[in-house]
Amino acid sequence: MLRAGVDLGGTKIQVAVIDPDGEILGQCRVPTPQDHGPQGVLDAIAHSVRDAVADASAQLDQLIGVGVGSPGQIDVDSGTVSHAGNLPDWSGSVAVGPRLREALGVPIEVGNDVQVAVMAESTLGAGRPYSSMIGVFCGTGVGGGIVIDDQLWLGRGAAGEIGHMVVEPDGAPCTCGKRGCLEAYAGRAAMEIEARRLVAKGKKTDLFTIMEHKGRTRLASGVWAKALAHHDHMATKLITRAEWALGIGIASAVNLLDVEAIVIGGGLGLRLGAPFVDRIRSQMMPHLLQPEKPPQVLLATLGDLGGAVGAGLLVEHTVAPTEQLGAVGDHDD
Amino acid sequence: MLRAGVDLGGTKIQVAVIDPDGEILGQCRVPTPQDHGPQGVLDAIAHSVRDAVADASAQLDQLIGVGVGSPGQIDVDSGTVSHAGNLPDWSGSVAVGPRLREALGVPIEVGNDVQVAVMAESTLGAGRPYSSMIGVFCGTGVGGGIVIDDQLWLGRGAAGEIGHMVVEPDGAPCTCGKRGCLEAYAGRAAMEIEARRLVAKGKKTDLFTIMEHKGRTRLASGVWAKALAHHDHMATKLITRAEWALGIGIASAVNLLDVEAIVIGGGLGLRLGAPFVDRIRSQMMPHLLQPEKPPQVLLATLGDLGGAVGAGLLVEHTVAPTEQLGAVGDHDD
Repeated sequence: MLRAGVDLGGTKIQVAVIDPDGEILGQCRVPTPQDHGPQGVLDAIAHSVRDAVADASAQLDQLIGVGVGSPGQIDVDSGTVSHAGNLPDWSGSVAVGPRLREALGVPIEVGNDVQVAVMAESTLGAGRPYSSMIGVFCGTGVGGGIVIDDQLWLGRGAAGEIGHMVVEPDGAPCTCGKRGCLEAYAGRAAMEIEARRLVAKGKKTDLFTIMEHKGRTRLASGVWAKALAHHDHMATKLITRAEWALGIGIASAVNLLDVEAIVIGGGLGLRLGAPFVDRIRSQMMPHLLQPEKPPQVLLATLGDLGGAVGAGLLVEHTVAPTEQLGAVGDHDD
Repeated sequence: MLRAGVDLGGTKIQVAVIDPDGEILGQCRVPTPQDHGPQGVLDAIAHSVRDAVADASAQLDQLIGVGVGSPGQIDVDSGTVSHAGNLPDWSGSVAVGPRLREALGVPIEVGNDVQVAVMAESTLGAGRPYSSMIGVFCGTGVGGGIVIDDQLWLGRGAAGEIGHMVVEPDGAPCTCGKRGCLEAYAGRAAMEIEARRLVAKGKKTDLFTIMEHKGRTRLASGVWAKALAHHDHMATKLITRAEWALGIGIASAVNLLDVEAIVIGGGLGLRLGAPFVDRIRSQMMPHLLQPEKPPQVLLATLGDLGGAVGAGLLVEHTVAPTEQLGAVGDHDD
């Protein structure tokens, strides 16, 4: 009764094989192929699932299914992914579910990458003791997910976009085209644009030197973490601004929803860690209607594997193992 | 199988007697007694329920129960109301449920005034076609309620406070003591404070003249409506500012929760009516993450009786009618 989960991102594919308790038995992580379009990505996913299964000392036919957490717009029923701008040459709609089923011979479930990561934290991570929580995932953007009565609340399909709550009317430009969104202050993409703007104006920072030392072309989360550890003035200022915006957005969400817990995750959240979470909590407090009854504000505990584990949870225990028999092995390459 | 609902406010008590379909069969409205503390208020409620039952050409023993929507902090299990600053001499905790049960001899349910009004709109009013909605009630303050899967979401007991979402950091002072809350722009109390501040600075307005003509000491909703209809500059400016803040707060809530509908109610909402709702919708649109898929923004349809009808809905159909037998009549006065 094993399940595999795939965290499909623009730069890496992370796979985890989990047992019925969500324990990780095997894993595999590869760069997302950039040169062969969707087929290259799907091939890499299929390979990685096989490798992770081998890492778990298991066989493919022991999997009751594979869950895929993907960026873009997901059609859960058909298993298609469209508008996934982060993925290479991903134009139109790609039948991720059917094509992986063909390649692996097991049932495939496809879900939203942030939402599966939030459900992983709710079910197995920091949010486990609570039946209501909001996941706030700071990475390139600021994604989120709302858990109510232990279930993900999807609204009409797009709920959870805490990154696009307005924290300052007519404020900083957001990558979504609007202004003053939380993501315009606390998303890595917007933070990098602001850092480059300040540098162009002659401001000093070690952010880009650290980036080059690390062999990166973008201000990855680790770059921000290192610059902050070295008390870089610009990095400190921009991260403090991000915490200020997160405090406002989270407090507004808490005043509206009165959830038990806030779980901070994502690349930036994980790299900046507990001190970042503590400072966000401090920034939240003055805006709470009931400061005497604050929610728990917690760091995600599943780390970089949360997305893959959460994708694995998409596969229901109830999928009949017999459904996959016969196809297994036919597509081995 | 009749139910009575009581909308208990600081200035008036409104009672409705409803049939199983929520149709209003009888009603009664009296000023809230200001001089005899909680006992005076409870006596007035009991009298008004009897009068509303008579108005419905019914008998008290036909009621399966009475619901009370009250301001303040409600303990649903014990039926007590505390911290109800709007109610006269309401210090400590008042056992509204038990004392009304004693006076009327029927089961009593007590709930939050805004929440019952939101449930009335969800069940019988503008929100009826939708399983998810947010009620935004603009009166002295800005109250709200969140309906998810046709159920009120209460969080840890305090969910729905859309009036205390931050729409402008370090913005206008709010009656809650914080700054920049939606209520600081769109609540009548805060709007009146701002109007008085502007008058003290020498700004002109007919708001206070209209107030005096109407024999009021406060800028009631009808005063704002009349001033707006007469194109009073200050009234127009402050109501436009309220719509701006409502647009931001509602859009943030929609980006977070992706509900199907927003229902605008409360005294100010009802008096300013459909044009107010249209302007709020326009102010919301630029801040939506998915402007191509906006929620419905609707005016509450149950009007001033929504609170009383919603309170009546607190009484479950399943309350056994026999529970009340015997006591009825014993306490007739």
